[in-house]
Amino acid sequence: MNIQELIKPLIQKNSTKIIMVVLDGVGGLPDASGKTELEAAHTPNLDSLAGKSACGLHVPVAYGITPGSGPGHLGIFGYDPIECQIGRGILEALGLGLGVRKSDVAVRCNYSTFVNGIITDRRAGRIPTGKSKELTEKLQKELSSIDEAELIFAPGMEHRFAVLIRFPEPLEADAAMISDTDPQKEGKAPLYPSALAKNSESVSRIAEKLINKAHDILKNETKANYILTRGFSSMPHIPNFDEAFGLNALAIATYPMYRGLAKLVGMDTPALEGSVEDEIRFLKQKYNDHDFFFMHVKKVDSYGEDGNFKGKAARIEEFDKLLPQILELKPDVLVITGDHSTPSIMKGHSWHPVPVLINSPYVLGKICDAFSERQFVKGELGIFPAVNIMPLALAHAGRLKKFGA
Amino acid sequence: MNIQELIKPLIQKNSTKIIMVVLDGVGGLPDASGKTELEAAHTPNLDSLAGKSACGLHVPVAYGITPGSGPGHLGIFGYDPIECQIGRGILEALGLGLGVRKSDVAVRCNYSTFVNGIITDRRAGRIPTGKSKELTEKLQKELSSIDEAELIFAPGMEHRFAVLIRFPEPLEADAAMISDTDPQKEGKAPLYPSALAKNSESVSRIAEKLINKAHDILKNETKANYILTRGFSSMPHIPNFDEAFGLNALAIATYPMYRGLAKLVGMDTPALEGSVEDEIRFLKQKYNDHDFFFMHVKKVDSYGEDGNFKGKAARIEEFDKLLPQILELKPDVLVITGDHSTPSIMKGHSWHPVPVLINSPYVLGKICDAFSERQFVKGELGIFPAVNIMPLALAHAGRLKKFGA
Repeated sequence: MNIQELIKPLIQKNSTKIIMVVLDGVGGLPDASGKTELEAAHTPNLDSLAGKSACGLHVPVAYGITPGSGPGHLGIFGYDPIECQIGRGILEALGLGLGVRKSDVAVRCNYSTFVNGIITDRRAGRIPTGKSKELTEKLQKELSSIDEAELIFAPGMEHRFAVLIRFPEPLEADAAMISDTDPQKEGKAPLYPSALAKNSESVSRIAEKLINKAHDILKNETKANYILTRGFSSMPHIPNFDEAFGLNALAIATYPMYRGLAKLVGMDTPALEGSVEDEIRFLKQKYNDHDFFFMHVKKVDSYGEDGNFKGKAARIEEFDKLLPQILELKPDVLVITGDHSTPSIMKGHSWHPVPVLINSPYVLGKICDAFSERQFVKGELGIFPAVNIMPLALAHAGRLKKFGA
Repeated sequence: MNIQELIKPLIQKNSTKIIMVVLDGVGGLPDASGKTELEAAHTPNLDSLAGKSACGLHVPVAYGITPGSGPGHLGIFGYDPIECQIGRGILEALGLGLGVRKSDVAVRCNYSTFVNGIITDRRAGRIPTGKSKELTEKLQKELSSIDEAELIFAPGMEHRFAVLIRFPEPLEADAAMISDTDPQKEGKAPLYPSALAKNSESVSRIAEKLINKAHDILKNETKANYILTRGFSSMPHIPNFDEAFGLNALAIATYPMYRGLAKLVGMDTPALEGSVEDEIRFLKQKYNDHDFFFMHVKKVDSYGEDGNFKGKAARIEEFDKLLPQILELKPDVLVITGDHSTPSIMKGHSWHPVPVLINSPYVLGKICDAFSERQFVKGELGIFPAVNIMPLALAHAGRLKKFGA
């Protein structure tokens, strides 16, 4: 049985506050020094909190599975990341800051070079981002709708951009089942955007027109004269966070992708810029208006992805210095975790279980004396699937009734 | 796959004896002293046994889920407590000492006050238990059957009682799907006991007559002149313990609820009164007649529920002193665990994983040097779902063949 189905009849509301801090990619591995980034970082506040908290490691998706940001966040938000898969187009659109609706089909696009019916360069010579932005704005201006659908373009890096095909009404689950047109190899003709389901025929028709009209608009470009489309997808049909957990949630995140993921599950996602300190300032401002706060700290992951071990440790230390400001709010439950591991020595996401700390009065504590992977292996939460974090947070907040008599 | 399906073809019988001691609500949390009830209690025998046993923590239902006594026991008896849910009426009837059969529909009832078609007091002013008993006996005397069904009443505390509607034949799975008649608020009319399935129509008809006839019998009472009915339920269709595990099981429990739960899965459940020492005496008497013994120690939970930390620790110490008597029997496998945690600081059941110890010659041992939550976090069994305890007990008893060649 699905965990959300199990807990739904048990949910009771109260006035407790739950803060979930996501240190993106926080889990790591030892470098030549033998220490992980968390062990190398000087983190007196996190270490002290670990001693008073329930600690463990969560498995984002499954043993050995390296999650992308989408599944990584869905899991810690309490959604089974295998059941609730987010289409590539949707993730791309969220990452580029588009607000996606239930009536949208999102598509990842590439500018490409088309000569005599053949794609000669799938990436249009990786045109500069500025040029790409200019072309995308042109497409937006000259191609704001096709048939009943509105089109919303968002420029990306180099040859990449995304488009939303917005219909007047919410879509059926299979409306976006359209095949990719990218032939995957140079020297081949682009493919046709075929409808793979009865319900996707109108999207297929509009996609074909989109590709042809875009070619018409771009035909005088020497490189970027054609678009290739991939990852047609619509919003996953998943329950709203409020409906699933009885929580009025606020997302505090400075990167569009993470606000987008939070919005996908129905959190409030006001635009926000600035540092981690700015995020905490915003948390304080909004503390009376919500009962669940997802606060996203991006830079920990970014330095991990760059293979910058010291930089990642420094970002962890930066958060540690600010932690007392969060503790001053005295949340009933404080969860500190990551969406996945990003070991600097691997320069990318990994499958390794991710440290998770739950602070509340209802813990054993005094087991771990530092916030680290090796300490948390022996923690009272054990090693467990990420989707269990939300039920645990709710339980610690007194928001779950007893199951059975 | 269901665990029972997995192990069923592997079961082999032998002459081993398995004793499972359930210290009800044994798991706890630290109070201001920093120690849990188990840590505060002086338990030399349990501690010494822990050093020679496989130890760990079990999750009764799922992370964050606080189990009632029903799901708590089903899990350690090897039944998935989410798949096998026990109706409220059945649990109430078991708790009041009624022997429930597959041909019964069990109902939780309240005496209430009914004036001019309206419920003015859902609890009939919480009439004294003595008065309630007298009225329930009157109902039993004057209303021993309706149509083809026999009625069996059991008085409870204050305004509460239970009734079994006993049919001549075992019932279909959905025969008890009847809506509650309790309007949940004073000032409203009682609801009709509607059939929610085709198979529940005869129960609905009898329930309506029961309510009307009871009102007729009680009509001269000033307070308790009407009955409200809730939690219509029949026995879950679950395999018998013997069939599932090849064990001839005896339940040793002094509280009706726990004998009822054991009876539900098909254990022998002779009536028994007295202390833990009396339970152990009974265990010794019956030791040759069965191969599995479920021994229930209730008081540990009761003191936890009262928030009496020292009282709970004292009950644990009491059991510890008697433990050598159980060890003298030299069972092939001894399991000591609880059905859920009941931290005194929470004055109620909780979701926290529960200590479990398995003693047999086939353990690593020398990992935990005390019987406690924090020690068992590092134990060789890890943190695992309660339904795995029975397969482990069977394996340690040499009662499971190899899976596959």
